Amino acid sequence: MKAAYYVGNKSFRVEEITTPPPGPDDVQIEIAYCGICGSDMHVYHGDMDWRVGDHRIIGHEMSGAIAAVGANVTGFAVGDRVVARPTVSCGACAACQRGYGHVCQNLSILGMDADGAFQQTWNAPAANLHRIPDALTMRQGALIEPVAVAVHCVNRGAVEAGEDVVVIGGGPIGLLVALVARERGGNILISEPGAFRREIAEAYGLDTVDPRSADIKAAVGERTGGKGADVAFEVSSTQAGVDAMTDVAAVRGRIVMVAIHTKKPAVDMFRLFATELEIIGARVYEASDFDVAIELLASGRIDCERMITSVAALDDIGSAFADLDGNAAAMKTLVRCGVWNE
Amino acid sequence: MKAAYYVGNKSFRVEEITTPPPGPDDVQIEIAYCGICGSDMHVYHGDMDWRVGDHRIIGHEMSGAIAAVGANVTGFAVGDRVVARPTVSCGACAACQRGYGHVCQNLSILGMDADGAFQQTWNAPAANLHRIPDALTMRQGALIEPVAVAVHCVNRGAVEAGEDVVVIGGGPIGLLVALVARERGGNILISEPGAFRREIAEAYGLDTVDPRSADIKAAVGERTGGKGADVAFEVSSTQAGVDAMTDVAAVRGRIVMVAIHTKKPAVDMFRLFATELEIIGARVYEASDFDVAIELLASGRIDCERMITSVAALDDIGSAFADLDGNAAAMKTLVRCGVWNE
Repeated sequence: MKAAYYVGNKSFRVEEITTPPPGPDDVQIEIAYCGICGSDMHVYHGDMDWRVGDHRIIGHEMSGAIAAVGANVTGFAVGDRVVARPTVSCGACAACQRGYGHVCQNLSILGMDADGAFQQTWNAPAANLHRIPDALTMRQGALIEPVAVAVHCVNRGAVEAGEDVVVIGGGPIGLLVALVARERGGNILISEPGAFRREIAEAYGLDTVDPRSADIKAAVGERTGGKGADVAFEVSSTQAGVDAMTDVAAVRGRIVMVAIHTKKPAVDMFRLFATELEIIGARVYEASDFDVAIELLASGRIDCERMITSVAALDDIGSAFADLDGNAAAMKTLVRCGVWNE
Repeated sequence: MKAAYYVGNKSFRVEEITTPPPGPDDVQIEIAYCGICGSDMHVYHGDMDWRVGDHRIIGHEMSGAIAAVGANVTGFAVGDRVVARPTVSCGACAACQRGYGHVCQNLSILGMDADGAFQQTWNAPAANLHRIPDALTMRQGALIEPVAVAVHCVNRGAVEAGEDVVVIGGGPIGLLVALVARERGGNILISEPGAFRREIAEAYGLDTVDPRSADIKAAVGERTGGKGADVAFEVSSTQAGVDAMTDVAAVRGRIVMVAIHTKKPAVDMFRLFATELEIIGARVYEASDFDVAIELLASGRIDCERMITSVAALDDIGSAFADLDGNAAAMKTLVRCGVWNE
C-alpha cells in the first residue's frame, strides 16, 4: 500500500510499504479522505520537526471504513464507516487523574507523535472510534475532526444565546467556530483580511470585517452599543490578532485562545487586568465533542461541503501542501487516499 | 488644613488649604492613616501623569473618623470610624448595566481620577463607606483596602481548599493574597527574590522560594507531585513573573493577573493553549470584598500589623515615597495624617 511520509524541508515522499496488521486493540481502517489541518501546515513549515522527525506519516482529519479488527476489539466490524479521534492519553499523569485526559501531560497525537492517516490504510485504537452516520459522505466525514475542534472551543468559551462573538481569523477552524457559536445563539462577526475567505463566510450568512481596512474595535463597539464582544476567539496566530482579541472584548469578556503561537506574542495584560478579561486555552477535544460534531453535521445544522475548496490525490500530497501554503483563495483541502468518490 | 499634592517628577508639595464642606451625599472624614499603594508608586514614577496630572491629592488606603455629614446622608454620624471604598461607577455604561460596576467603563478612582486621602480631611461619598469595627485600630483600618484587593483576587481565582497556590511576588498585595488564599484552605508558596520580604512571609508561616536561586517550575513540580499549581497569582509586574505564571501552572490551571503591566509582556500563549490554562484579570473590589476583608481583619484571622514597616508624617510624604521606592527592606508604609497614634 501507499503511505505519504513527511520527510522534512517542506517535502513528502510517497512510499510503497507492507500493510501492517492491526494490534489486538486496534482496527485497520481503509482511509477515504484526510484533510490538511493548520497543524499539518506547521509540520510542513518545519516548526514541528523536533516532534515529528523527518520520516512521519502525518494527517488526522480522516474518514474511512474498517478493513480488519484486532483480536480484542468488540462492537466494530469490517465495513463500518468510522473516524478515529487522534488523541491518546497516558491515563497515569496528574492531568489524566484529574479528568483532563484530552490535555494529558504525556498526550500523544496520532499523525504527529505517531503515524497518522495520509496513507491507504491506518491502524488506530478501537477505543478512539466514532461512527460516521449514513447521512454523511466520506468527504463530510473528514470534516468531523475540525468541527469537533470548534465544538470544544465554543464549549471553552461557554457561548450563550444572545452573546456577541468575534472570531479573529476566518480560515477553516475560525469559520467552524463561527458556525458552531451561531448554533449556540451567538451574534457572530468574523475578522478576516482575505477576501476569498470573507466571501465564504458571507455565503454562510455570517457578518465579516476586514481588519486591514476597518477599525475592528470601533466596528465591534458599534455592533454592541459600546459593550464589546462577550466572547472573542483568536484563531489567526498573528500579533495583530492578539492585539485585537483584548481590544474587542467587553468588560469581563472571555477570550478563547485557539491559535498556535509558536513565538510568545505581546499581550495587553493591562487591559486584561483593568477590564477583568479571561483568556482561556482550548486544545483538541474530548470524546463528547466528537459526538456533538457528528450530530451537527449529520443533522445538516452545519454544512461543511462548501468549505472544501480542493481535493488532491495521495500521490500529489506534496503539491497539495504547496498549493495550500499561504493561498488566500483556499479553505479546506482534502487528500483522497482510497476508492471513495464522495 | 494640610493636603499633600503630587506635583509630578517624583515630588509632593504639602499645601495649607481651606477645608471644603462635604457635598450633600458625602461625609467629611478626618483621615487617621493612609497607606502607600503600589499604584501610588506608579504615580510617583510618572506612569500615571496622563491620568492624575500634576496637582493631585492621591492616596486611597485610608482610615478615619467622620467629622461632618452632608445634608442627604443617613446612617452615619460624626465620630463614626470608617473607610471609604474609592471606586465610583457611572451606573450607565454597559459594564455597570451588566452588574460589573466595580470595573465600570468610566470608573473613577478617588485618589487617582479625583482627590484622595493624603490630607487631613477628605470628603467621600457616603455610599462608599464601611465601618471600622471596634476590634481594629486606625492603623489596621488603613489595611482594609489592600486586604479587600486580596479578597477580590482570591475570589477571581476561585481558590478551593486543598489547592496548590503559587503567589509570584511577595510585596504587600502578594503577601495578603497568600494569606487570604491560605484562609480558603490553599497550600501556598510565595516566589519572591527579596530576602526581607521572604522573611516576613515566613514569619507568617508561609513557604517561600527565591526565583533567582531556585528553578521555580521544578520547585512547584516537586511540591505538587508533578501536577503544578492549581492557581497562580502574578503580582510581580515583571516579565520573569509572567514567564513563571505559565510555567508553574497545572494543566487547566488558573492564573490571576493582579499586577499592573504598563508595557505588554510576552506571554506563553502556546503553553496556555496546550495545557488549557486560564488567565483571569482581577481589578479592585466589590463592596462585598470590603465586608469580607473587614471580617478577616477584625476576627484576627489575618494579622496585618507585622506588614507595617514604616509610619511617616504627612509633612514627610515625599521622603516616605523616596524611602519606599525600590526598598527591598520595606513592606507597607503608612502616612499618618491625623491625631491618632494607633
